[in-house]
Amino acid sequence: MSADRLISKIREKRCPVCVGLDTRPEYIPPVILAEVLRGVDLSNPAAAAAAYAEGAYRFNAAIIEAVCDIVPAVKVQCSHYDLYGPAGAEIMRRTLAFAREKGLYTIVDGRRNDVGLVAEAYAKSFFGKVEFGGVSFEPYPTDALTVTAYAGTEGIKPFLDYCDEHMLFVMTRSSAKSAHEIQELVAGDRSLYRVIASRIERWGANKMGEYGYSAVGAVVGATSPRALGELRATCRRTFLLVPGYGAQGGDGESVRHAFDRDGRGALVSASRSVLTAWMRRKDEDGEGFEKAAADAVIRMKKDILSYVTVL
Amino acid sequence: MSADRLISKIREKRCPVCVGLDTRPEYIPPVILAEVLRGVDLSNPAAAAAAYAEGAYRFNAAIIEAVCDIVPAVKVQCSHYDLYGPAGAEIMRRTLAFAREKGLYTIVDGRRNDVGLVAEAYAKSFFGKVEFGGVSFEPYPTDALTVTAYAGTEGIKPFLDYCDEHMLFVMTRSSAKSAHEIQELVAGDRSLYRVIASRIERWGANKMGEYGYSAVGAVVGATSPRALGELRATCRRTFLLVPGYGAQGGDGESVRHAFDRDGRGALVSASRSVLTAWMRRKDEDGEGFEKAAADAVIRMKKDILSYVTVL
Repeated sequence: MSADRLISKIREKRCPVCVGLDTRPEYIPPVILAEVLRGVDLSNPAAAAAAYAEGAYRFNAAIIEAVCDIVPAVKVQCSHYDLYGPAGAEIMRRTLAFAREKGLYTIVDGRRNDVGLVAEAYAKSFFGKVEFGGVSFEPYPTDALTVTAYAGTEGIKPFLDYCDEHMLFVMTRSSAKSAHEIQELVAGDRSLYRVIASRIERWGANKMGEYGYSAVGAVVGATSPRALGELRATCRRTFLLVPGYGAQGGDGESVRHAFDRDGRGALVSASRSVLTAWMRRKDEDGEGFEKAAADAVIRMKKDILSYVTVL
Repeated sequence: MSADRLISKIREKRCPVCVGLDTRPEYIPPVILAEVLRGVDLSNPAAAAAAYAEGAYRFNAAIIEAVCDIVPAVKVQCSHYDLYGPAGAEIMRRTLAFAREKGLYTIVDGRRNDVGLVAEAYAKSFFGKVEFGGVSFEPYPTDALTVTAYAGTEGIKPFLDYCDEHMLFVMTRSSAKSAHEIQELVAGDRSLYRVIASRIERWGANKMGEYGYSAVGAVVGATSPRALGELRATCRRTFLLVPGYGAQGGDGESVRHAFDRDGRGALVSASRSVLTAWMRRKDEDGEGFEKAAADAVIRMKKDILSYVTVL
């Protein structure tokens, strides 16, 4: 119905942090690769890709086990799963299923966008069911999905139909240096990303929850503190998904602006800094990568909570 | 290096038509379903989805065989493959491979967008190679990909690195009724889609070909004749990918504006009207669906060529 389910999970753990499982092949520690590559015919490219995909899944599952008592949510970025080919789609599905089994809120970062049957197909694939010969199949069950707004309301509406149970995060202001080229163009009296933000407020108006946040959120990069503060102040019912903490340059100081006075209204995501934490340790095999990841998440939580009190 | 390879294929067949293989489960004719469902345990949702995916692949392959001497290109819309879950990713890959084997130019309509490692990962997944333990794997080899421009140059650059061999089509003006909400906002003296179009001209400036078209094209809906004509006149080196012919309302009269004086500069795509042509015949089993599709494509070609002469 809204952001309530996500916000409850954040409050439960007093932790507005999301782990981005952007599991690129080079992030998989040798200790896992040794397991999954045993007996694999490496002269067969598809077999090699599938073995690495299995390694990425085991890595994800171990990270999920290590952080599921600390954080409320995980996010998967589709592009990194595309790298493994079709085996990547399979492990993305398994990763989402395992994360939900562990009580985590799951977000698919796909930035999907289009209209009509295409938007409907995406909505069904991530939020709904497809009928195959009378059997109901859920392609990629997840709690939330990122989308873009370029096509307007027609591209959003098919997702809204599922927003009693699910959330949508609309790309609003990215961390890219080139973001100004399009996102900060001024239309009338406002920059484009502000126009999109006010559309988001409208799209979410009928999907409000008890915490005062709707089911339609906005994606705003952690390295844009000005945009975070501005949107927090003007879009009071829009929950913010804030990627780019850590390796991309965001920190507690920059993301504090995304939160309201009750320490609500935002979820901050980090990926690279958590997944590759093991590389900054002495053990070259990556033994203990789970602990390294959990430690990175705890540091991140502490950093953010030194600026924000989650009520 | 440019749009040359695509344009050569269009000239060879004198046919600026692309078949959209947006193969939704309900498009698969009973005659194929009967084959693929034999012996499948329909109480297992994943098995049912995989059987339907195999049916979608056989349908695609038969359509490709039926049209490969008529049209120069096919396009797959990712969302419709997501519906089948991971089995859909597998058949999308096989469909692309088979189409290329048949000499067709392949376009993945994914509307991908993001920056940094994410954009790089998408570029690698569709245009490049990924190393797995020293083995090179091509995740989803295709000739061209659709993307969006919201993040600006940083989101486009990772793809440009591959544009000596590949093409990029940037979402510019969609057919949606709600397109005006964002795409037609006026920034300075121009609507947003015009701003994006001039960015496209700039992005493609170093990827020009002998026919005068660059490797960076624009996606513009068939139902926007005004935008097609305007962009054709002002963006002379931008090749236009024009979806939405047929079921979505575009026709020869509306798409003629997308072509230059030599009948070049555009590729018109139809999906539903071709794939579901068999449903408008008497045979309820869908026997002869290949011929129905080929006939629909030939009608479309004739319609367009009654307005446009391809030199």
